[in-house]
Amino acid sequence: MAGITRFGVSIDSQLIKKFDALIGRKGYANRSEAIRDMIRDNLVEQEWESGDQETVGTITIVYNHHTRELEHALTDMQHKSFHQIISALHVHLDAHNCLEVLVVKGKSREITRIADRLIGARGVKHGKLTMTTTGKELV
Amino acid sequence: MAGITRFGVSIDSQLIKKFDALIGRKGYANRSEAIRDMIRDNLVEQEWESGDQETVGTITIVYNHHTRELEHALTDMQHKSFHQIISALHVHLDAHNCLEVLVVKGKSREITRIADRLIGARGVKHGKLTMTTTGKELV
Amino acid sequence: MAGITRFGVSIDSQLIKKFDALIGRKGYANRSEAIRDMIRDNLVEQEWESGDQETVGTITIVYNHHTRELEHALTDMQHKSFHQIISALHVHLDAHNCLEVLVVKGKSREITRIADRLIGARGVKHGKLTMTTTGKELV
Amino acid sequence: MAGITRFGVSIDSQLIKKFDALIGRKGYANRSEAIRDMIRDNLVEQEWESGDQETVGTITIVYNHHTRELEHALTDMQHKSFHQIISALHVHLDAHNCLEVLVVKGKSREITRIADRLIGARGVKHGKLTMTTTGKELV
Repeated sequence: MAGITRFGVSIDSQLIKKFDALIGRKGYANRSEAIRDMIRDNLVEQEWESGDQETVGTITIVYNHHTRELEHALTDMQHKSFHQIISALHVHLDAHNCLEVLVVKGKSREITRIADRLIGARGVKHGKLTMTTTGKELV
Repeated sequence: MAGITRFGVSIDSQLIKKFDALIGRKGYANRSEAIRDMIRDNLVEQEWESGDQETVGTITIVYNHHTRELEHALTDMQHKSFHQIISALHVHLDAHNCLEVLVVKGKSREITRIADRLIGARGVKHGKLTMTTTGKELV
Repeated sequence: MAGITRFGVSIDSQLIKKFDALIGRKGYANRSEAIRDMIRDNLVEQEWESGDQETVGTITIVYNHHTRELEHALTDMQHKSFHQIISALHVHLDAHNCLEVLVVKGKSREITRIADRLIGARGVKHGKLTMTTTGKELV
Repeated sequence: MAGITRFGVSIDSQLIKKFDALIGRKGYANRSEAIRDMIRDNLVEQEWESGDQETVGTITIVYNHHTRELEHALTDMQHKSFHQIISALHVHLDAHNCLEVLVVKGKSREITRIADRLIGARGVKHGKLTMTTTGKELV
């Protein structure tokens, strides 16, 4: 188990004052927390660029549930990719519109392929892939 | 109820050939579908920029569930913002790491504020706000 | 004139090891330099979101110089917005294609409007607005 | 030489109305022009993802010109990468701050490496890589 490292950052006083104001607005408890977040964000980005590392993404799609063929296609795709799709949340936005979020685990390359298929499916009004992480490599 | 409009696009033959290859890889059924998706993407972007329009976002966070204080803070925040947070999905990624996706409805300005608070909370390893739509304004 | 502030960051040892590897690949001399860059990046983003602050952007466009009407339109627009457009660089990419970078100073809202007009002009193959800063507020 | 292709897009009338308003604000002459731009944008993105294709980028940096060592480092790097760096524009923003835009041609992987080095150099306050295109593959 790794310990905690402490290191010093030297920075212009005006710059850190502006940064303090920004992280205050964002609700960070302290500078270390904000800096760790920026560091992790950069590492997650790298993880996704490699293509071959196992990672996690969420796919958000909004669609009209009256499009019956879409419902079937979505179920179908989820079953074909069941090794990757861990879980799904369905929300009824109004009488017509549904939102579905899928949590997908796999190589970034595979997750991107699944997202492309779902977002490109006929009837999907809007779709986005969010790249996150298994958390394993990030302490 | 609005009907369907049909309009023509003139484009260089080489350009459309490359676009056909790209949308083929992404699994689009036809050009109209791909173009409607690009159009909706642009409109959702505008929706979010206005700040005041009601819209929908998903907030994805990955965290270590051993951080008890975080669990409480998350529950707390969700209850305070219960008018906006419609629904949540919790996934156990491994023995230590959890992923949570919240579906949030409200003005883009408010959703961004909630996301900032959650992503900035101590113990959250990685967080992202995904901007999507109520679907109402997009046909 | 403001002085230099030094503050400590506590971080898990594994996380900082990964970050060191990443900034090594990117050629940073030390952690402070990398962290200051992430901080400035966040501040520039805020500067642009406000809309009303004076800032600087570069607009990059690639176009076919045989499109005479475009050349005229570009010159025209640059003259109309001469208070904002400080400077321009023209590069001949090959016998047909030109790249032009404009350096624009003004409120982020105005710069965005100029960029939209240029990128949307008939004959422009590709265009991008890059949001940077006057440097004044960033030390 | 390739000709012009004309194809039809079918779309909900409300959706195209909103799109017309958006492209009106952005100054597009007509729908075809706006759609061609979205298509090219997608193709340029693919070009950059491949890593191996020859393409063009602009690197924008803002720095304090009093940092003598930076001036030398910049000149040095530009000479080492002179096969890739085609051209550069230097702007004096105020008594202290300079902006420099470099136009770089090469494989996207190489351009990214050069940008990382320049943006990470001590004394650079803000830097951004803008991914564009040689224009050759885009008609």
